[in-house]
Amino acid sequence: MNEIKVGLIGFGNIGAGVVRLLNDNAATIRQKIGTGIVLKKIADLDITSDRGVTVDPSLLTTDVNDIFNDPEISIVIELIGGYEPAKSFVLKAISAGKHVVTANKALLALHGDELYAAAARKGVEVQFEAAVGGGIPVLSAIKGNLAANRFNSVFGIMNGTCNYILTRMTQEGADFGEVLKSAQELGYAEPDPTFDIEGTDTAHKLAVLASLCFGTRIDFGAIHTEGITGISGIDISYAAEFGYRIKLLAIGKRTDDGQLELRVHPTMIPLHNPLADVNGVFNAIRLTGDFVGPVLFYGRGAGQNPTASAVVGDLIALSRSIRAGVQTRRAAPLGFLDEAVTTLPLKPMEEIVTSFMLRFTALDQPGVLAGIAGVLGKNGISIESMVQTARHNGGAAVPIVIMTHEAKEGAIRAALAEIDRFDFISEKSRFIRIEDNLE
Amino acid sequence: MNEIKVGLIGFGNIGAGVVRLLNDNAATIRQKIGTGIVLKKIADLDITSDRGVTVDPSLLTTDVNDIFNDPEISIVIELIGGYEPAKSFVLKAISAGKHVVTANKALLALHGDELYAAAARKGVEVQFEAAVGGGIPVLSAIKGNLAANRFNSVFGIMNGTCNYILTRMTQEGADFGEVLKSAQELGYAEPDPTFDIEGTDTAHKLAVLASLCFGTRIDFGAIHTEGITGISGIDISYAAEFGYRIKLLAIGKRTDDGQLELRVHPTMIPLHNPLADVNGVFNAIRLTGDFVGPVLFYGRGAGQNPTASAVVGDLIALSRSIRAGVQTRRAAPLGFLDEAVTTLPLKPMEEIVTSFMLRFTALDQPGVLAGIAGVLGKNGISIESMVQTARHNGGAAVPIVIMTHEAKEGAIRAALAEIDRFDFISEKSRFIRIEDNLE
Repeated sequence: MNEIKVGLIGFGNIGAGVVRLLNDNAATIRQKIGTGIVLKKIADLDITSDRGVTVDPSLLTTDVNDIFNDPEISIVIELIGGYEPAKSFVLKAISAGKHVVTANKALLALHGDELYAAAARKGVEVQFEAAVGGGIPVLSAIKGNLAANRFNSVFGIMNGTCNYILTRMTQEGADFGEVLKSAQELGYAEPDPTFDIEGTDTAHKLAVLASLCFGTRIDFGAIHTEGITGISGIDISYAAEFGYRIKLLAIGKRTDDGQLELRVHPTMIPLHNPLADVNGVFNAIRLTGDFVGPVLFYGRGAGQNPTASAVVGDLIALSRSIRAGVQTRRAAPLGFLDEAVTTLPLKPMEEIVTSFMLRFTALDQPGVLAGIAGVLGKNGISIESMVQTARHNGGAAVPIVIMTHEAKEGAIRAALAEIDRFDFISEKSRFIRIEDNLE
Repeated sequence: MNEIKVGLIGFGNIGAGVVRLLNDNAATIRQKIGTGIVLKKIADLDITSDRGVTVDPSLLTTDVNDIFNDPEISIVIELIGGYEPAKSFVLKAISAGKHVVTANKALLALHGDELYAAAARKGVEVQFEAAVGGGIPVLSAIKGNLAANRFNSVFGIMNGTCNYILTRMTQEGADFGEVLKSAQELGYAEPDPTFDIEGTDTAHKLAVLASLCFGTRIDFGAIHTEGITGISGIDISYAAEFGYRIKLLAIGKRTDDGQLELRVHPTMIPLHNPLADVNGVFNAIRLTGDFVGPVLFYGRGAGQNPTASAVVGDLIALSRSIRAGVQTRRAAPLGFLDEAVTTLPLKPMEEIVTSFMLRFTALDQPGVLAGIAGVLGKNGISIESMVQTARHNGGAAVPIVIMTHEAKEGAIRAALAEIDRFDFISEKSRFIRIEDNLE
């Protein structure tokens, strides 16, 4: 039987994992699809460094066109990441009639529509399980066995770096800066961690997930995205005092009025919520479908081997299609036919309703509480509970922490802006959103 | 475009859910596969009872042959459960050249090989996501995106009735009998709960899961199966005292020497293990693959709507294949080609190594501990810790609870048989297996 010939663009950490997996588990893969999946060419600018895997040197090339121009190659794996030249390479692979497997969430979140349209025109597939949740097969599940459902929500912990940092801050009472430094030394955070800690990576993944769940195009720039750089040890300990843990959550919901709620921000979730116990570099993604109800997926959200598992899983699916003689299959990268994909409007952040933990730093003097409570009341925000730490010494600034009932974010922002104009407020007031009933 | 025509055998609770799902989400399904999935006939002995769903009366028949003989029907759903006539019906559907979707774990666990072989000969598919974990898409994941892995283990909580009962026993300190009675009244346990509470249903699911994970035929009768009828409130409270929770676990492992460990029994798992918090009717299944590492799936393991989600998910997959013109695809119901399916030997239960909680009931007299400890030592069993409850009144029987280090089950059984011959032992001694490091 003819082997499936594959070209790999990008021989970095994940690429080396794919090479090792195809080597180590060649027999298993053959037992499942009846033929071998063979790497025919590997393109990278650096083809001399040792990647710790055995590879025939004749496969290596610095010219990516060697892959596009090879008529035997039916699937191209893109693992270089980033927007360019990844996007050009994917488009070239598609126009050469090759199926594409990619782990590139940034590319898909910003340019997915263009790539999917090109693939649909050419009748090839774009698969990208590794783009979300590392080895966790959540995208396949949404497009596959869960496809009978209309999804109401998708949310989860999708960035291992942030979750590692928040977990250590929680367990050690440490502050953000010192944990980040240690995480970088240990290899759990990049030398430039901006995309991770500012929430961008999580927002990329939310965009991909939501497009599949809701069959919609996503305007990536419109997703409200906050990272964890503003979270302090004091936030974490107050949250714990009220029975909550702080996690960087991606949240996607379809609202009753046909809007889409998409947001990434530090979120207080109750300690009894299973996500509160997702620690370290693990990821967890929870979906709610109208028939299946809630389903949660948990596993390693990054790393060489788990990501390689997802990439080769996509290769296996495509290989099965190729061997079954599927020629005319219409590309439906989101699981929906192209003409069924819509553009749901995003709900403005000001309209989002949650409860909040508010933290004020105020001079310890008479009238402070009355002032704060008055402004909150005027903005329709009702107080659920409050903690005011005992004064340390007369006149010094003290923290006041207030838990609110549900309120619109717009009202909270307006109230805090007004409160921050009081003379007795000595630091910018802060709020953290609370999700008590994530469904 | 031609619609996909489906025949349904069994119009009970799950069948009605499938009818409702195909009605309610017809538009969504059409957006995903480009055509409709249409129920053309529904066969049941009772076609007059109200199932709470709208159905055209002309679809209903009491003669199942109306389905087999209808050349327009390409997929048959079997939802009557049990061995016969389900098995005959599935074989007839296959021999009529129809794909089969079933939720029947009992049938698959005992007669799967025969059905799969018939399907392979005929070139049709047998899909059965709903057989394990209700709506949780774990079987699709094993055969699909996780297929690149060699699996080392699969375990989990797979029976909602047992988990509901154990959860209430744990939370309320109640005893088995009273909780079972209440569960029956609430509809969480069948009028005849034998298959559930004796572990048989869980063993059926383990057989199906293990056959997919390890690509092996399973001798169902050889799976060690213990239910929860012997678990008492006292076991649960002693387990809690040592930091454990008791769950009915299905455990499947591939051992280093090429054997298979398959067992279903009440198991003490550490409180910090995520499975310890899987409560009520929820199911959780954890797999470990050589590349993906651990992956956990959690959701509703039973019920009309979640099970319908899985059944219709299978219909969608088959419909996509049919529409893509897949004609010659080789049936591989386990995800492995037939010739690659092996028969791994089962490891004898006596050889299994775990640690144990032992509970003795002994007269309160001198020499008891020395006697027990002596027999344990002679059998190579070392004690990790012990609790002896203070005597209530002179001479009465008292419980002695011992936690062991790892030991072979054969040694434990031999030791307990010997200890039970002591005059001071007043009740049959009991043991519960402990899994500290489920991987």
